[in-house]
Amino acid sequence: MATHLTDNCLFCKIIRGEIPSHKVAETEKSFCFLDINPLSEGHALVIPKYHAEFFHQLPEDHLADILPLAKKVAVASGLKEYNLLQNNGPMAHQVVPHVHFHIIPKNKPEDGLKIGWPQLQPSQDSLKATLARIKEKL
Amino acid sequence: MATHLTDNCLFCKIIRGEIPSHKVAETEKSFCFLDINPLSEGHALVIPKYHAEFFHQLPEDHLADILPLAKKVAVASGLKEYNLLQNNGPMAHQVVPHVHFHIIPKNKPEDGLKIGWPQLQPSQDSLKATLARIKEKL
Ligand SMILES: [Zn+2]
Ligand SMILES: [Zn+2]
Ligand SMILES: [Zn+2]
Ligand SMILES: [Zn+2]
Repeated sequence: MATHLTDNCLFCKIIRGEIPSHKVAETEKSFCFLDINPLSEGHALVIPKYHAEFFHQLPEDHLADILPLAKKVAVASGLKEYNLLQNNGPMAHQVVPHVHFHIIPKNKPEDGLKIGWPQLQPSQDSLKATLARIKEKL
Repeated sequence: MATHLTDNCLFCKIIRGEIPSHKVAETEKSFCFLDINPLSEGHALVIPKYHAEFFHQLPEDHLADILPLAKKVAVASGLKEYNLLQNNGPMAHQVVPHVHFHIIPKNKPEDGLKIGWPQLQPSQDSLKATLARIKEKL
């Protein structure tokens, strides 16, 4: 696995144990630990044992391993309401450049992630144009 | 697959084709379509072909299938900055009670998901207590 990691990344160092963490669980391909600046009690991160800055750079086998581990942790944590969030790029609130999925408990309305949802009302033609643009590259 | 779906769910009906959608792609276990009230152009949903209200109720094989499909769609969409978000429960902003992962492009700072990040500063003892509570159930 070590061949997928890099030398100068905080999360790669946590995976290798060079920097201590509050490790919750791990598999051959993924690692889960507590966020030390949580948005709510129990806020955990699930990360691939593969250094990639962005989600779309991860290989299939690592992608397939992340959510089953996140589920195990969600169940063990006794979560009822929570958000799973993965941010790509600084505009999207990514800080550490190693892919990470946040599991953020929402135990009461005032804690956890704050979400703003400014919906658009595109026309059917606009949606069709978007769909055509994406499907052309699939 | 139809045995995993229910009769009275909007997303189950979309999967079965009983309600039309702007379908982007599908696999044997997952389905992707455009959100008709997007937060930004290209906002898509990836859902399991398995009716479950919450993430932690999904079986492993469906969990493993979701992110590889999300990656295909992210790549075809040409995304650079974006959020992946999955909400569980009304406090956490879930509206449709069938698990769905939002792929929300962030093409410019003002569009897409709005995120508020009210970090806590727990003590090491508090983090250790949280860790012990979760690990006891793992
Ligand atoms: Zn790394
Ligand atoms: Zn690998
Ligand atoms: Zn359903
Ligand atoms: Zn199945």
